Amino acid sequence: MRLIKEVSQMKIWSENARKNGVRIALVPTMGYFHEGHLALMRKAKTLANKVVVSIFVNPIQFGPQEDLKEYPRDLERDASLAQEVGVDVVFAPNAKDMYPQVYQTYVEVTELSKPLCGAKRPGHFKGVATVCLKLFNIVKPHLAVFGLKDYQQFLVVKRMIADLNLDVEIVGHPIVREKDGLAMSSRNIYLSPEERKSAVCLYKALCLAKEKVKKGLKDTNILQKELEEFILSHPYTKVDYIEFRDPEHLIEVREITEPTLLALAVFIGKARLIDNMIIEP
Amino acid sequence: MRLIKEVSQMKIWSENARKNGVRIALVPTMGYFHEGHLALMRKAKTLANKVVVSIFVNPIQFGPQEDLKEYPRDLERDASLAQEVGVDVVFAPNAKDMYPQVYQTYVEVTELSKPLCGAKRPGHFKGVATVCLKLFNIVKPHLAVFGLKDYQQFLVVKRMIADLNLDVEIVGHPIVREKDGLAMSSRNIYLSPEERKSAVCLYKALCLAKEKVKKGLKDTNILQKELEEFILSHPYTKVDYIEFRDPEHLIEVREITEPTLLALAVFIGKARLIDNMIIEP
Repeated sequence: MRLIKEVSQMKIWSENARKNGVRIALVPTMGYFHEGHLALMRKAKTLANKVVVSIFVNPIQFGPQEDLKEYPRDLERDASLAQEVGVDVVFAPNAKDMYPQVYQTYVEVTELSKPLCGAKRPGHFKGVATVCLKLFNIVKPHLAVFGLKDYQQFLVVKRMIADLNLDVEIVGHPIVREKDGLAMSSRNIYLSPEERKSAVCLYKALCLAKEKVKKGLKDTNILQKELEEFILSHPYTKVDYIEFRDPEHLIEVREITEPTLLALAVFIGKARLIDNMIIEP
Repeated sequence: MRLIKEVSQMKIWSENARKNGVRIALVPTMGYFHEGHLALMRKAKTLANKVVVSIFVNPIQFGPQEDLKEYPRDLERDASLAQEVGVDVVFAPNAKDMYPQVYQTYVEVTELSKPLCGAKRPGHFKGVATVCLKLFNIVKPHLAVFGLKDYQQFLVVKRMIADLNLDVEIVGHPIVREKDGLAMSSRNIYLSPEERKSAVCLYKALCLAKEKVKKGLKDTNILQKELEEFILSHPYTKVDYIEFRDPEHLIEVREITEPTLLALAVFIGKARLIDNMIIEP
């Protein structure tokens, strides 16, 4: 496995690979790998000849009050995990190479970036779209694999690809969960043992909603209130949002008559965790 | 010469050309060709194996009060002129194919888009950057040729290419002028015969400034006032801006001690014309 740190070197690798007819898959990550990341890499391996995993804690997708500095990093461990999975290249650029001092170009996917995490984290999806576009241009992948825990991110990047006429196929991978159901996330490291116990309430809330809808409760207003109550019955929790949206355009849903995205963002102590599920009517 | 109207067809042509090792040059235009456009095409021919000229009156770079509807169009004449010059493909997509109903992705080059035409035409350079990025992704050129009459546009696109890690070389072509010095522009068609006579005042003002600087007048404030007076001494004129900026970052210049961009925008009747010159100290 190669570890490439320079943008120019990555470009050369990718140009050569393309010239040789190699099909490239990219797994864009912020590192600090867990089983979720490794699942994306394994999926990528089945879809391409060569897998590139990028590791870059992208500063422009963090708000000024967010956890850019604390975000966990361990390149050595990540590189060794990636190698075990059979990744071909770990691309770990530094921020100055990605955003030199004169940097000033940003991509915005307007409508899909407005609700949910976009409303709570202004500028977040502009940062995500911009870095993904840069990574696509540098790594030149035929396809890119994203985890569906970041469902809105998946939609934003998919829309950007279509709108900008990019030749990248986007593949979404189902959420990978701990045994008790907690969605895997690098941010779970922030949880104290007590908070970790509470954190399962996100997944439990999703399951509760699924069950209630199955039993005939279709009014999302009522569901939202019941879920909020359920989550707040767990210690250390603060609800950021609980929303029902259509899974394609993220339009608000009042009554569940079609498959509907239920998306949650909940603070558990200082950690802001997200999770989601498509709820069948 | 091929005339391609569909985005998907253009992509197929470009992919095949790339596979066959063809070096592609793109000349992005809004059509209604004059000698300036043809000069860009001839330049492109010397730099690549195949030349693609795009013709697209890009709605998103026009403000709501601007001349999108009146902008002159003549695809048949354009195609025949392009063919005479030896262009390989005219790419003339329609707006619905470029911007389908769900379209929502925009690229912004923040700092370089602020002054000059960016200040007078809000959103203009966002529209320019976005359409150029789309054209680059569709046509996949190795290089693109832009006219330097639109100097700020040239800088914006150049910055976007660097910031987004695109593999496109950008080539600027000197302004092509009429015999009396008027910069060629599709918008010159808007001028009545009397206005056409006045319109040469842009070029004359640039030459006047060059001469005054040569003679030792370096204060751009004084120069600006003298140029304004000069322009307004011509009938039908209204000054939009007269500015002295550094030619790389477009920072305002107070005293001409380095090569300096003098950029003008002047209404002649209803037509808004621009012109520029690099003034040596």
